[in-house]
Parts: sequence; structure tokens; C-alpha cells
Amino acid sequence: MKKTLAPLSVLFEPRSVAVVGASRRPGSIGAEILRNLISFGFRGPVYPVNKAAEVVLSCKAYPRVIAIPDPVDLAVIAVPREFVLEVVRDCGRKGVKGLVVITAGFKEAGHEGVAREIELQRLTREFGMRVIGPNCMGLINAAEDVRLNASFAGGVPLPGRVAFATQSGALGEAILADARDLGLGIAKFASIGNIVDVTATDLVEAFGADPAIDVILLYIESFGDPRRFTQIARSISRDKPILVVKSGRSAAGARAAASHTGSLVGRDVAVESVLEQCGVLRAQSVRELFTMASAFANQPMPNGDRVAIVTNAGGPGILATDACAGLGLRLATFSNATRRALERALPQGAATQNPVDLIADADATRFQKALTAVGKDPGVDAILALFVSPVTTDALAVARTIAAAPSASGKTTLACFMGKEQSDEGVKILRGAKVPVYRFPEEAASALAAMCRWRRFRERKPGELPRFDVDAAAARRVLAKARKAGKTLLLGGECEPILRAYGLPVARSIVAADVGAAMRFAGEVGYPIVLKAESSAFVHKTEVGGVRANLENGDQLFEAFSDLERRLRPKAKDLRIRAQQQVKGHAEVILGASFDPVFGPLLLFGLGGVYVEVLRDVAVRVHPITDVDAAEMIRSIRGWPLLSGARGAKPVDVAFLEEMLLRLSCLVGDLDDVAELDLNPLIIGADAKRAAVVDARIRLRPKERG
Amino acid sequence: MKKTLAPLSVLFEPRSVAVVGASRRPGSIGAEILRNLISFGFRGPVYPVNKAAEVVLSCKAYPRVIAIPDPVDLAVIAVPREFVLEVVRDCGRKGVKGLVVITAGFKEAGHEGVAREIELQRLTREFGMRVIGPNCMGLINAAEDVRLNASFAGGVPLPGRVAFATQSGALGEAILADARDLGLGIAKFASIGNIVDVTATDLVEAFGADPAIDVILLYIESFGDPRRFTQIARSISRDKPILVVKSGRSAAGARAAASHTGSLVGRDVAVESVLEQCGVLRAQSVRELFTMASAFANQPMPNGDRVAIVTNAGGPGILATDACAGLGLRLATFSNATRRALERALPQGAATQNPVDLIADADATRFQKALTAVGKDPGVDAILALFVSPVTTDALAVARTIAAAPSASGKTTLACFMGKEQSDEGVKILRGAKVPVYRFPEEAASALAAMCRWRRFRERKPGELPRFDVDAAAARRVLAKARKAGKTLLLGGECEPILRAYGLPVARSIVAADVGAAMRFAGEVGYPIVLKAESSAFVHKTEVGGVRANLENGDQLFEAFSDLERRLRPKAKDLRIRAQQQVKGHAEVILGASFDPVFGPLLLFGLGGVYVEVLRDVAVRVHPITDVDAAEMIRSIRGWPLLSGARGAKPVDVAFLEEMLLRLSCLVGDLDDVAELDLNPLIIGADAKRAAVVDARIRLRPKERG
Repeated sequence: MKKTLAPLSVLFEPRSVAVVGASRRPGSIGAEILRNLISFGFRGPVYPVNKAAEVVLSCKAYPRVIAIPDPVDLAVIAVPREFVLEVVRDCGRKGVKGLVVITAGFKEAGHEGVAREIELQRLTREFGMRVIGPNCMGLINAAEDVRLNASFAGGVPLPGRVAFATQSGALGEAILADARDLGLGIAKFASIGNIVDVTATDLVEAFGADPAIDVILLYIESFGDPRRFTQIARSISRDKPILVVKSGRSAAGARAAASHTGSLVGRDVAVESVLEQCGVLRAQSVRELFTMASAFANQPMPNGDRVAIVTNAGGPGILATDACAGLGLRLATFSNATRRALERALPQGAATQNPVDLIADADATRFQKALTAVGKDPGVDAILALFVSPVTTDALAVARTIAAAPSASGKTTLACFMGKEQSDEGVKILRGAKVPVYRFPEEAASALAAMCRWRRFRERKPGELPRFDVDAAAARRVLAKARKAGKTLLLGGECEPILRAYGLPVARSIVAADVGAAMRFAGEVGYPIVLKAESSAFVHKTEVGGVRANLENGDQLFEAFSDLERRLRPKAKDLRIRAQQQVKGHAEVILGASFDPVFGPLLLFGLGGVYVEVLRDVAVRVHPITDVDAAEMIRSIRGWPLLSGARGAKPVDVAFLEEMLLRLSCLVGDLDDVAELDLNPLIIGADAKRAAVVDARIRLRPKERG
Repeated sequence: MKKTLAPLSVLFEPRSVAVVGASRRPGSIGAEILRNLISFGFRGPVYPVNKAAEVVLSCKAYPRVIAIPDPVDLAVIAVPREFVLEVVRDCGRKGVKGLVVITAGFKEAGHEGVAREIELQRLTREFGMRVIGPNCMGLINAAEDVRLNASFAGGVPLPGRVAFATQSGALGEAILADARDLGLGIAKFASIGNIVDVTATDLVEAFGADPAIDVILLYIESFGDPRRFTQIARSISRDKPILVVKSGRSAAGARAAASHTGSLVGRDVAVESVLEQCGVLRAQSVRELFTMASAFANQPMPNGDRVAIVTNAGGPGILATDACAGLGLRLATFSNATRRALERALPQGAATQNPVDLIADADATRFQKALTAVGKDPGVDAILALFVSPVTTDALAVARTIAAAPSASGKTTLACFMGKEQSDEGVKILRGAKVPVYRFPEEAASALAAMCRWRRFRERKPGELPRFDVDAAAARRVLAKARKAGKTLLLGGECEPILRAYGLPVARSIVAADVGAAMRFAGEVGYPIVLKAESSAFVHKTEVGGVRANLENGDQLFEAFSDLERRLRPKAKDLRIRAQQQVKGHAEVILGASFDPVFGPLLLFGLGGVYVEVLRDVAVRVHPITDVDAAEMIRSIRGWPLLSGARGAKPVDVAFLEEMLLRLSCLVGDLDDVAELDLNPLIIGADAKRAAVVDARIRLRPKERG
């Protein structure tokens, strides 16, 4: 179905626009949209549609869309909710191909609204229309040959190469206003509202292909189809930075988002993972979104993370240094040539090390010499120029000097002008030269850190989704059999055939009908042996003392077997005693999978025991994971040194662990029935041949009704 | 000496001021200071001092301070560096009691500058003067009966009840300008420069006692005397919030700060601890300092952490919810009465749960009803009112409504007005009513979280420094003996008498001359026994296989003893084999102390082994610690559940651990010779009677020269 839809250009590049609900009442939404369309200079004709008025804002108005004599490409609908569907039918008959439905009162407004929204979706699909909204604030395309402002936003965006899509209309309004205030130019804007058709992902795709756009900003509360988002964002983010504020981070926020958009939000750990996996930069706040965006929109990417700080004030220099260090940037070490040049250029008392402190009375010439010296240093990738304007210095001359620096050095340059009142004009000069200028040094550092983060994303190998020689059919048979027996939970040895089918080694075991069988098994695989009690009467066998380990010989095996029988049989009629080969290794890890209603299977890795349960030291990724993801997961836990062999710990076979994670990823991808899976623990040493899962749990997905 | 100094009022409340170096050249510092003094309306006479000019800025000028016929209380010195000392002598002769030394070129500017600063300090002490600076930007006292602006800051502070002290003049300039821009009123300001006399701590003390001041802001790079700061800040912070930006956080930043101020910065973990211990709120950035300050300066403290969010836009409401949850605030659960009131007041589609979403077309009346309803709810401690101004709503009416809300409800109310351009006037209305207004919802949440944090600081019991019955003399004798023997490191059993003297239980042990002695010892204390090899040839005995544990009987003891002798004697001529009682317990913890050059002894607590070494899960506090500090330290590590008995772990005797930390604090306080101490591990179970330190290390401080 999706493929037959018209491209988004029917929305962003219409040749003519009708405003349905165009009103004569100043301040009404219908009036504002019409005014915006006209005053922004839309290149084609705009037709007001108003049941009563013959003229609106000096334009001839029509009582219905079908009464317009000429073709209409796009209709903006701002009529009361009860008339929307009628208008859509008119538009369909008229051959309108794009709709912007501003009107609210759909999915967000109870049962009746939901029904209205379903009908809106059905109708517009039937007519083959592309739709933005309903319940949105419209869209903008600032391209010179279009000049479409089909929104009721106050104020006009500055020219620029940033695109912005928002799931919250109100936030869109605010962000457009702030963008103007902060000098960020917008090429395209869309408020997607309740999303009956065009999604944030559709917009990312369109913005990605749009040569007028360098940077993509998003505010989203929910992912529609996270797989499609991942796929598209992963490829676009290699060319253009995608910066996102994703709300619903906390449980309370997720509930609020769900009630706001009517969509499930998914676990935030999955959101983090998806964004990280597809190279999308998440801003922690709207303020940070702007901080990042103005750097990406204006400056070239740095070639590395070595920063030079040039300042006329010690305090801000130290704050910038702290912020850089805290964000993982490196303070550049200057070459001898640079040091000498700085020593020649600067007076006594100035600091020629990084941060370079020009001291308070530094004028434009001193700034110029210092910026030139560090700009030439091959060990410098980016420059933060900090200026506090003292009354005694010509701030505008300094601004002009900093503004000229990047074109001379070719290096990423961000500025901080402190003491706002004296420097508004300086800020304008810098912005005019495309040097982003921040109010506080920490913000300049954070913008630069985001750029370096994106550079690392792009340098990352794309990764592969390896396939293994597995026996999915065998695993499915075991699951089907369990289903048939009415089981929803497979424990311990019951999981073994499924894991073996995917090449996940499991400690050899049998259910021993009697102690003799256990002894024969021990004779086969060798001592030591572990005995484990299994029963539907208990889930955690350790809590009932159901595990006896380190059984070194037949005597100990006999004693332990009898003990389990005696203690547990009375409570557990279906008691089975499993005899298991005792695995040797020095590290316990957990591999797991669980199902998120939005993102599907999540894969988990951590160190066993208290590391996961108490310290919550785990890595989570959304399925499917590449080999690069698997390698990153294992290395990202705090306890990684315990596996890598650092600090005197014995190393484990990490390549083997990576393969196990990838095999697990295949397993959860193949076997839809698996809702939750824990391999806890897998014991591993330096030699992976002896590594094995010693306990496992698989929870089946509840059978769908019908 | 300190006590005989004049109070700071000689600086902040002079009856007359001389400006030495008052210049006729516009834009020069001397000219700006004089202009500021006059235009800010200083209540007493101002005397320009200028070698050449007879009139400066229409004021009669004098060639030297001693030429002024009337008394001079305060002199502001802005002459070239080489004339400063001469001017100070003049001031001394004239009986000037306060100096503000603006001139730079002292400690921060090489050898010559250091000598000049030492002489400045000597001279001013001799004259009994109080001094701000040198290398500073001056001070301001906005009190109506004084009106002193002895600074070269551009612009005039707004009236208000905030005091601000800064160690960076440039940052002071910037912050004054931003304060004005953000509507934050300043009562007193001082830039302390190189600190030959007045310190940040002195100012905190003065501001604390000043009835005109409600909130104290600090920017500091180094602590002068951290103990005095702690003592003073701890008492003042119970009455007035102290908000601080402390830079030099990172290693690179600390180096930069040291080169900027010539002072050591100390480890940031110690800074965090000191600030936490004395209830000072640390802002992570200058921006956050303002965010916090405007809430503290304007609104009453909340009675709890239950927040109601009222918004006309879903997106910002979700962002605020996320931020509140992330910062440890709670979303209030409304009473049934509140829910009913909201349902009556709000249209269909609005959310009557928290966050309350009034939807986009909410006018002032709807805001008013919602704010009244949640304001009355006894389950609400604070209100965040968020407003995105749509073109269709009267933003000023909404601003007036929000502005009136706190006086009706009596509850802490913070506002966020988004979409700046349309709402500048609204922001003014809110500020006029002392409702802090932020640009982004996350900032409002962070300001509120800071208030709640201060509330918790104030509610915290002050804590006591318990004394124990210890034998300091015995411990000192052991240390003196070690010194005499030329030792700088005491290992294992060598530490035992020192620890016992402070009531820190140590597993019983002897140095066993031969296996027979070890066996006799085992007969006395009982098996199992541990043997440990000690020698100056190795520090980490485990790395040479120098520990043999779990020796259950004489045979095993014999085998182990022989093994150690055979393997280690060849490498370690001074090998001693220690036989130790094997302690039983299920948790290993580390107690430690180390010496910071600025803060003195730091105390450390963590779980033993990888928890400290790999996961860095430790709590650090600056000595001395109170019983409350000790309790907090133990509970603040991530691994706390492993000690508390949560999640099936066996609990340990936590009260005993607290006592051990307090005893350790006494030890490091008494014994100056101890530079570093590790009790690693102390083994403990549920019954503290059997807990004991099983290994220890004490490093002595290097002997001071001379």
C-alpha cells in the first residue's frame, strides 16, 4: 500500500493552496493561516474557503472547495471538528492531493474523536491523499521557489538549512520562535499531530533526500514503526546529523505521552539503544537541541576531538576546560611552534598553554594572533573562542576577528560571548559569519562534544547481521510441544534442546530417575557433578535449597540425591532431579532477551549475580544486533575489565561471547513464541570450549486470542 | 590575627571613597569606576585622585590621597601596577581602612608580581586595612543608604536580595550582565581577585549575617581554608541557600585553575563531599546557577517534593514530567476533590490527571480554574505552570493569572513561557510578581529540584562527631618507632597495634618464627588459619602467591608453611610468615583514608575487591565525619543492597560499620603522620563480634624538610 502513495512533495511543493475555514476574525486560526500564507509570499494562488464571507483578507473567497474554479494541490483544513470529514470529501472530489488538517478533536479527544480519526484515515486513503495531522499546527517550506507557510505559527523563520519535525504542535510553535531568536534558520518544518498518514520517519526520509537540508531536528513522543525508523535513520544519519528530543523517558512521562498521543512509548532503555544503533543524537533537553543544532547547522565537522580554548578570561576558560573533559573531548597539546608563536604574541601573565588565556585587556589583535597560532597547529581539531567583553575593549572588533578565524584555519570554531548586554551586536556579527555563539562556555563545549559524537557514529563500521547454521525447525518443535502441553515457562533442562539448536552450549545434563542413573551419567561426563531440583512447585530452585554443587564422587552424589528427594519430594509431587556436568570457568555472565511492546525483542548482556541484580550493570540493545553491536554491548558494561583481563583478572574468550549474543539474536528473531529468555549464568573462562550455559529460562508469549 | 581585623563594613559601607587612578580617558578602567560610583548614586563624597588632572568627570581631583582634605574610608586603586604600593602607603598614612585593588599584575604575573603581592599583603596588614583584590573588578553594595558601585562593570544591577562573590572578575562581569537580563536582583557583589585579605569564606560569613540578603551565589576556583569554609557554610546554609559554581572539576581544569589563581584546587571528589557535607548546592554550569538562583530568590521553599504540572501543551508537559522524575521529584497524585474540580473546569480532551493538560486553546480563565484546583490540593507541594503562547490566546491575561496563583495557593510556583517573541511582556508580568519564568520546562524542573534538595539539606540532622576511648599515645609510639627505623610503609600485622589502639578489630595474628609457633598459635585461636608472607620485596602478597587460606588442621598448616618458605625465601631475605585467625563473614568492605593537599584527610568506604577496583563504587567524605556522614556514606554506594540484606543477601551489622568509619576518622584526625591508610578488607557478617580487619596498609607522610 505504502508504495502507491504520492511523494511528500504534494504537501511541501503545491502549486496552489486552499485554506478551508479561512476566517475574517483576526486572531482566529483560520485567519492566521491565510495571513501567514500570503505574507510569507507563497508563489502560487491561495484560495480562502468560507461558507459565509465573499472576501477574506482581500482575497476572493469560495463557499466550498469544489467551488474553486482552478486546480487545488493542497488544502489546509481549519474548520470545526464536525465539518472536517465533509471538507475532506469535497477535497477528494476536487482532486486535492495533499491535506494539512489543523483541526483538533480526533484520537486525543475520546471515543467520538477516535471514530472520526478512523474515518478520516479511511477517506484520505481512499482518495490517495497525503495528510499531515490532524491536530497539528501545519507545515512550512521556506524554499525560494515555493515560500509555503501553511501554519498558524507567529513570526517568520529565518533562512537556513535546518529541517524540523515535531509531534507536539505547541512545542513546534515554541521552537520556531526560539530558532528565530537564536539565529537558527529553518528550511522546512512540519507538525505531524495525530499522524493519520505522514509520520516522523516519512519526514526524516524526505528531509534526508532533500538537498536544501543539512540538519534534521525531531521532537517525538512515540515511534510509529521503530524498525522502519531505524532502517531509514541509520542510513540518513551517515550523511546528515539527526538530532532528537524524545520525551516519555520516565515512567510518569511515558504515561503522560501515552495519554497525549494515544501511543505506547516503549522502554526508554530501548529508545536509547535504537537511537544509538542508528547514529541519531539524542538531546537531553530542548535547550540542548538548540545548542547542538546551531553548531551542526553552521560549522564544518571537526576532524578529531582535540580542542584549543582561547579566552580573555581565566574563569570561563576553566569552565570550558572542565566541560570539555567531562564530555570526553581532549585539550589539545600545542606544538613547539605554536607555543613559541603564542609566547611572541602574548604579554607577560598570559597563559600560552591550553586554555590560552589572553588576559582581560586582550584586544582584537591579540585574539587574532592567538587564533592564528592555534588554528595552524596540526594537533588542534576545533577551537572554542571565549570572550567576556570588558568596558575597555572594542567588542565588535573582537567579534569580527573571531568571525574571520574559521575561514583562515578551516577548523571548527565555536564562540562564547559573555555579558550579553554589551555584545548583542557582536553576536550578530558572529552569527552572520556562521560562527555559532553561546552564552556560557559549557554550552559551546557541549555543542562540540555532540559534533565529535556524530563523527564517531559515522566512523563506526556499519556492522553485519551474521547468520549461523541453526536448526530453527527443531526449536520450533520443542516450543510447539510445550504449547500443546499448556506450558508458558520452560525451565533449566527444558530449554536445552532449543538452545542447542542455535549453537548455544549447555552443560550436559539428564533427568535422573534414580541415583543410579545419576551415577551412570557422572561416569560418562566425569565428576564434579551438580544436582538440580526442578518442579512446577517452585521457580527459584536456590531458594528451596534445590541445588547441590561440587559433588566430587559417588558418595557425595548419593548423599546429595537422597537429601533432595527427602526434603523436596513432599512439597513437589512432580519433582525431577537433574544431574548436570559442572562447568568450569571464572566468570559468570547473563545473556537475555525480553519483549518490548513497541520495539520488539531487546537483548541484554551483563555479568551474573549481583552485578545485574543489584548494580544493574547491563547493556541492552534492540533486536537485531550486528557484530559491531555485540562487541559494543560487552565492552560497555562497567564490569568489562573483569572480562578483558585488566587489573589482574583472568580474561575470558570475548569473541565467543560476541558469537553467543549474535546467536541469541538469531534465536529471538526466528522464534516469535519466545517472550522472554534468560541464560543465567553462562560460565566462561579463557578457553571457550569449556564454556556453557548452566541454567536457563524461557517464557512463551501468551497465545493471542482468536 | 584574623580577629583583630576590621569588619567587612569598612569595604561595603564606607562614608567616603577615593578613586586612585581616576582617569579622564573615556573607556579606561579608572574613568569607568568613577562614572559608576557617581551614576549609581553613592551617598557620600567621591574623590578622584589623579596626578595630572585637576578635574575628572566634573569632580575636583587631588594629586595624591594624602592631599584630600576630608576623611577617606575606602580607596579604589586603579593605577598602573608599579605605583600600587606607593598608593597603599599614602592610603595608610591617610587612615584609609578599606582598599579595593583593581590593578592586575600580581601573583598571576610571574616572580615580580608575586613579590609585589607579598609586599601588598604585608603593608595592608601593617595598616590594618581590609582589602578586596588585587586583580579584581571591584564591589557593589546596592543598599539604598549606601549605593556603592566601586566596580568597572557595565550596567547597573536590578534591585534584589541576592549576593554574589566571584573569584573570576570576568565571569563576575558576565554574570552581572546576565543577572540583569534574567531579572535577578543583586544586593551585594564582590570580585575577590587574588585574595590578599578578603576571601570567599569571609564574604559568605558577611552575607550570611546580612539581613538584606536571602540567597548567596559563589563562583570559586579554589578553597582558601576548606575547614573554615565548611564550618561557616554549614551553619549559614541552614538559613540561606548558598549556590556555587566550583570550577577545576577535571584534571585539565584543575591545572588551568592552578595556573590562573596560583592555588591548588584539590580533588573534585573532595570538593563534592565538602559541599554536600555543608549543605551548599553546586550548580553544574553558570546557566544552572541562574536557573536555581531565580527560584530561590523569588519563591517560598516547597514543603515537599510533590509537583503538579499545569500546561496548555502536551509536549512540554511530558518534558517537564520526564525532567521531574529524572531529578527525583514526585508527580503529585490528586485528591478526588481536585479531580472532580478539574473535570468540571476543563473541556473534553483535556487531561485531569497530572500533568494537567488544558489543551492548546486554554485561556486565562481555564488556567485560573486549574491552578486554583491543584493549589488547594494538600497533596501538592509545588506547581509548574507551562504555557506556550498560541496566536489565538491572550498571553498577557494568562501571565497575570499565573502571576496571581502563588499568593492564592501559598505554594511554590515556577513558570515556563515558551515561544519567546510573543511573550516578552508576559515574562515581565511574571517576574514583577516574583514568579520565576523559564524558557524550557526542563529548567523549571531543575530549579524546583534544587529547592527540594536544599530542603533535604536543612532537614538533615546536624550530626555529631563522637569521640571514642582510644589510645593515641600507643599509636604514636608505634609510628615514631617506624619513623626511626626509616620506614614509610607499614604492612599487614605492622599496622595492628595502631588499629587496636583505635578500637578497630584486627584478626589475631603472630609472626611465626617457625611452623611450631604457627601451630601453637592455631591451638590458641582455633582453626581455620591463614598464612601470609610479608616482606619488603613485594607489596602485593597475593601476586606472589603469598597467602594460603582455609588451613583446617595441623597437616595443612605444615604443608602451607613449608611451601611459602620454599618458594619465597629465596626472593625475600626478610620474609616473615604471619599466622592469622581466619575471620568469618559474608561481606568484604574497604575502609580507607588518604590525604588531599587542600582538604586534608579524605575517608573512603566501599565494598571490597572488584567493587572498588573495577566498578569504582566508593563513597568519599572529607575528614572529620559525623555519625550522619558515616551513615550516609555506607548507604550511598551502589552496592548498598548487598549490605542491607535486600534481594536475598545476608545483612551485615551496619551500625558496627558506621562506628568503624567514625573510629577511623578519629585516627586520621589524631595521627598527622598517617598519609594513607587502607583496611582492605574488613570482613563482616551479621554478628559484628566476629568482624575484623584482615589486611591493612599505612603509608607515612614524607618527613618535612628542615
